[in-house]
Amino acid sequence: MENLPELEYIAWLKGQLTYKDWVTVGPGDDAAVVDWPKDKPCLITTDMLLEGSCFILEKAGPKRIGQKAMNVNLSDIAAMAGFPRAAVVSLALPRKGGKQLAQDLFLGLKQAADLFDTPIVGGDTNSWNGPLAISITLIGTPGPKGPILRSTAKPGDALLVTGQLGGSIRKKHLDFIPRIKEAQLLSQLVNIHSMIDLSDGLALDLHRICNESRCGATLFSDQIPISQDACLMNDDKTPLEHALSDGEDFELLFSLPFLEAQFLLKEQPLNGIKLTQIGEITPEGFFLQNKEGKVPLQPLGYTHKFN
Amino acid sequence: MENLPELEYIAWLKGQLTYKDWVTVGPGDDAAVVDWPKDKPCLITTDMLLEGSCFILEKAGPKRIGQKAMNVNLSDIAAMAGFPRAAVVSLALPRKGGKQLAQDLFLGLKQAADLFDTPIVGGDTNSWNGPLAISITLIGTPGPKGPILRSTAKPGDALLVTGQLGGSIRKKHLDFIPRIKEAQLLSQLVNIHSMIDLSDGLALDLHRICNESRCGATLFSDQIPISQDACLMNDDKTPLEHALSDGEDFELLFSLPFLEAQFLLKEQPLNGIKLTQIGEITPEGFFLQNKEGKVPLQPLGYTHKFN
Repeated sequence: MENLPELEYIAWLKGQLTYKDWVTVGPGDDAAVVDWPKDKPCLITTDMLLEGSCFILEKAGPKRIGQKAMNVNLSDIAAMAGFPRAAVVSLALPRKGGKQLAQDLFLGLKQAADLFDTPIVGGDTNSWNGPLAISITLIGTPGPKGPILRSTAKPGDALLVTGQLGGSIRKKHLDFIPRIKEAQLLSQLVNIHSMIDLSDGLALDLHRICNESRCGATLFSDQIPISQDACLMNDDKTPLEHALSDGEDFELLFSLPFLEAQFLLKEQPLNGIKLTQIGEITPEGFFLQNKEGKVPLQPLGYTHKFN
Repeated sequence: MENLPELEYIAWLKGQLTYKDWVTVGPGDDAAVVDWPKDKPCLITTDMLLEGSCFILEKAGPKRIGQKAMNVNLSDIAAMAGFPRAAVVSLALPRKGGKQLAQDLFLGLKQAADLFDTPIVGGDTNSWNGPLAISITLIGTPGPKGPILRSTAKPGDALLVTGQLGGSIRKKHLDFIPRIKEAQLLSQLVNIHSMIDLSDGLALDLHRICNESRCGATLFSDQIPISQDACLMNDDKTPLEHALSDGEDFELLFSLPFLEAQFLLKEQPLNGIKLTQIGEITPEGFFLQNKEGKVPLQPLGYTHKFN
């Protein structure tokens, strides 16, 4: 089996994997087979990370890129208050140094997945004359109250956020922990109407909730929890602008009835991760409110540009 | 919403999709939600197609590439005798011309998926300064007899194959129809012990069955159905060598008890797709048998090389 490094890599991979009893068939067949709990739907989400566009490989190092690639997907399952059940990983590896890169990436992928008991059950490993691309798909199950959607916010809901926002590019975008456990706890404690993970910036992601829920929102500018990193960005944007539009915070933004929000704000149940009310859901319009009054809020944030 | 072509593309996409009643939440949320049939496990498979390595975009055209990307994944579900239930699609698009490319690709993806009632329920659309990469993940359910694996071939089994082999690069690799329906019918009619779809070449894919099943195999060289395209390749390989080692036939290779194989060979139930016995599963060894005797068979075929 000389000259077949793909097969060698897969053999190495199989030795590294964490097996779970709900995985009947892991890597090595045409598809993996994952037992499914009765009466639970299947959540499925996919996210791709691209060298040069989403990360600089030399700067971050392959292990942290592997972690991030898994964590951005876990964050999507968190946003539904779901439980991840299995992951598959596709890699497009540059030909030169691909084997070492694949192994280093995998250690990061596995570390992130293991933290939330998520077995890697399959994938597709390729090499090409292009940069590194990583595509991950996660399947999962919703919690007892079902999946929490973007499309079910209601006017009058309070808007809450976990943690601090902005300036993630300085550090957090590489070493955040997806809010899986926090989302599960919150959905047990209260009736969350809508939720999203902040991947592309507060204003843009809130706009997505409003679009899907056919409603409006007002953000309270002096309530937005601005991170220290947003203050240290030292460019032509204010810290508030960073908190409103920077991508990759990977915090939870959610809406819920006002009274239940007051309960959460008082109890602060998330073990050191602060919950803050930053606004409210309204029938229509998209505004930022400060002491002087309301100004229209632009849904600015990160999107991929192509033409 | 100027300068946000990703959002525009997603809006266009949502208008194009075929909805199915088992999809509770389609594209537009953090994850899709797919109802799951009781007592069925989840099959999950992923395959990535890369420009320059797996296809030449200018030669094949984006629509056929989209079809192929979906079909290679459907072929993996076929190899388990499964039913596809939903697909997610991640794209890495070159920045220039990316929007038109994304739309043309999507028409091919959808056409292939629709043929097997497979809704596209989500994805991730990115642009970068790299070539086109397409990663698809399919989830599905097994048939009434459960998933058919690579690891359960038994010595004494007859080895059968659908269709003709070799020379796929001339045409078939772009316009094959995945053997979903054929696999389902076969698994109803007989007790298939093991199955794989021929993606990387007969000898290599058979070697995978043997490896996973801890057994051997002998191929009968004068029984292998050599395609016309294998005969027309006109290079330094013989037509038989092409049939043994060319990738992307996407036919089914399967093993089953000898008597049940005789039934299939006589009945030929696949509506114009011929079933041929090409060998047998043995306790050990990997051989090609011709009139003169047995020679060791090399597990040659296509694998990705990186170092």
